[in-house]
Amino acid sequence: MDATSLRAASTALRDSAPLVHCLTNTVVQTITANALLAIGAAPAMVDDPAEAGEFAAIASAVLVNVGTVQQRTAEAMRLAARAANEAGTPWVLDPVAVGGLTFRTELAADLVELRPTVVRGNASEVLALAGAGKGGRGVDSTADPDDALEAAGELARRTRGVVAVSGPVDVVTDGDTVVRVGGGSPLLTRTTGAGCALGAIVAAYVATAGDLVTATVAAHAHVALAAEAAAALADGPGTFAIRWLDALDAVDGETLLRAQLS
Amino acid sequence: MDATSLRAASTALRDSAPLVHCLTNTVVQTITANALLAIGAAPAMVDDPAEAGEFAAIASAVLVNVGTVQQRTAEAMRLAARAANEAGTPWVLDPVAVGGLTFRTELAADLVELRPTVVRGNASEVLALAGAGKGGRGVDSTADPDDALEAAGELARRTRGVVAVSGPVDVVTDGDTVVRVGGGSPLLTRTTGAGCALGAIVAAYVATAGDLVTATVAAHAHVALAAEAAAALADGPGTFAIRWLDALDAVDGETLLRAQLS
Amino acid sequence: MDATSLRAASTALRDSAPLVHCLTNTVVQTITANALLAIGAAPAMVDDPAEAGEFAAIASAVLVNVGTVQQRTAEAMRLAARAANEAGTPWVLDPVAVGGLTFRTELAADLVELRPTVVRGNASEVLALAGAGKGGRGVDSTADPDDALEAAGELARRTRGVVAVSGPVDVVTDGDTVVRVGGGSPLLTRTTGAGCALGAIVAAYVATAGDLVTATVAAHAHVALAAEAAAALADGPGTFAIRWLDALDAVDGETLLRAQLS
Repeated sequence: MDATSLRAASTALRDSAPLVHCLTNTVVQTITANALLAIGAAPAMVDDPAEAGEFAAIASAVLVNVGTVQQRTAEAMRLAARAANEAGTPWVLDPVAVGGLTFRTELAADLVELRPTVVRGNASEVLALAGAGKGGRGVDSTADPDDALEAAGELARRTRGVVAVSGPVDVVTDGDTVVRVGGGSPLLTRTTGAGCALGAIVAAYVATAGDLVTATVAAHAHVALAAEAAAALADGPGTFAIRWLDALDAVDGETLLRAQLS
Repeated sequence: MDATSLRAASTALRDSAPLVHCLTNTVVQTITANALLAIGAAPAMVDDPAEAGEFAAIASAVLVNVGTVQQRTAEAMRLAARAANEAGTPWVLDPVAVGGLTFRTELAADLVELRPTVVRGNASEVLALAGAGKGGRGVDSTADPDDALEAAGELARRTRGVVAVSGPVDVVTDGDTVVRVGGGSPLLTRTTGAGCALGAIVAAYVATAGDLVTATVAAHAHVALAAEAAAALADGPGTFAIRWLDALDAVDGETLLRAQLS
Repeated sequence: MDATSLRAASTALRDSAPLVHCLTNTVVQTITANALLAIGAAPAMVDDPAEAGEFAAIASAVLVNVGTVQQRTAEAMRLAARAANEAGTPWVLDPVAVGGLTFRTELAADLVELRPTVVRGNASEVLALAGAGKGGRGVDSTADPDDALEAAGELARRTRGVVAVSGPVDVVTDGDTVVRVGGGSPLLTRTTGAGCALGAIVAAYVATAGDLVTATVAAHAHVALAAEAAAALADGPGTFAIRWLDALDAVDGETLLRAQLS
């Protein structure tokens, strides 16, 4: 993939300011909303069955993240995913800690049947979701992205969508094309919600870019390049998270030309 | 309005450290608590029917923000508003995204019948709450505060309270007097929860100041002046939010004399 | 107590990266997760009955904080505490605002019967939990840690665990030994969640250190020393909270030798 295609994705995002409907875990709602605002998108967190379907139908994209899921929000997630499908709206599934816990693993399996536009997780989660592994412990991954490549490809063909596996080098695939995104910073794993916010950023990009793989890669490159800029200014994980938000705002189409793709 | 009256409101707030009971959305609980601590108030987030009425009865003021409302917290909001009324405690309604979603729009209409001391929202929300518009998309406003002035005045007369409409220039009215508060920074709209925290800051001010319009204007001026100070030190939306908390702490009665009132 | 024993506790923590299962209030989930990541632990927030028992059984330690408790999460807390006990896993109880509100006060009394490994609260909360006081208003304490020393000792003997009372000087006791931890910064009380994060840090330390009093003291010293470093770099409560996370990361076994113990 040529990094120049990422520049167009960035422009499309900034021009359209997509409304991203997030059904996400309560730990990361704030950083997710702030990350979306920083990249020029509009976040909205509506996670109750009373409103989730109604709102998904008018959103530009939907994020479903099962990090702190419960019966009530699980129902909202099903309604939102169905409403998104009916409206032809793209939606992203982030299967946090799937594999390790029964309730969310069953929910995630149901959600996969609804064919998420993009699945974004770590290697353990993607392996578990594809039925090929037992998952990690909580949000940690005990596997490398490339270990999950085959499972990711299979899952992508099953959902006819894209699967992105986060790690030191991220892997994005639609079951045919495979793109790797390098760079970033280890500090991304030392601040809560960076990975979850990436899921929301993917949703924002797929709302506005034509090609799904390009949009997903652009989101990953945006996050990685912002992390590099933030790490250069950070004195530790606290200042890193704040500088990362500043850098998400500063990254533009020209910056994305420096993405480490392979 | 003369800015010297704001100085007295600031002193009253710092001297009494009001306990502000917040029933607010989960995205902004942290920044709301931190903003209240920064201005010298004491925050407490108690949003379950099992405790909300009991706590509202002992609080200095109550904030009801419907941002991520659900059946359970809606019931807690009704109980808290009634307990506040019975105790003669002021309470603030923030009708986040009202107009755009059925469940919260009906809830907000019920809450208006309980006569909130202050309503704080953007123009779209105030228009929708007054029955004069269809609301914006999520937290965005598609209208200007002055477009909502007539609706705000009507609503204020109906609740016999104050209505504040946030925007580039904020408008505060009790249906008779109209005060405009200028200044601030566009970065306030690039960080999640700044507007919601303003609702809580209004609650803290009305808990301690004699005149409702003065208290509400003081809260808006406090936020705007802190935003200007923060913007001068910020490198982007991340550092802005942090510097804004520092500045909320630093603003005092003397600072409020520089408020841009008209 | 000799500060050299704290150095070993620090090393044990960094070497084992304990998985801390947090059932905590929604206001402080983010700072709690970030504080745990900063000290080298792995946080996971799972607070629904559908998963809490299953997860507590595989965690290294469990935190139960009743700050925004409701029926659903109260049930999850009971399940997690029982699962922790069955697995021989240490767990920490943070009785936020207990004494002042009926529902949580009854829940906390039940949880004490399940014998938490460590109870961490302010003086008002510990007095209320021990049946010796009426509690403060919300998260504020209206009493001094030493006022709660007798109640803390009694409670510790009843639970056969450790009780830590936070204040300007923290008091840690198992009902026999008493250790005081000085230092810290008043800014810790101006940022939401610092005390709640301390409860989680205690959980991380008791997961890995042999002696309960030593582990609890090490956690308090870690927080206090980081607060001193952060205060030196802070311009207000906003920058303090961020610098505190940086400093939690930077504190190591050598730093702990400077703990103010008595």
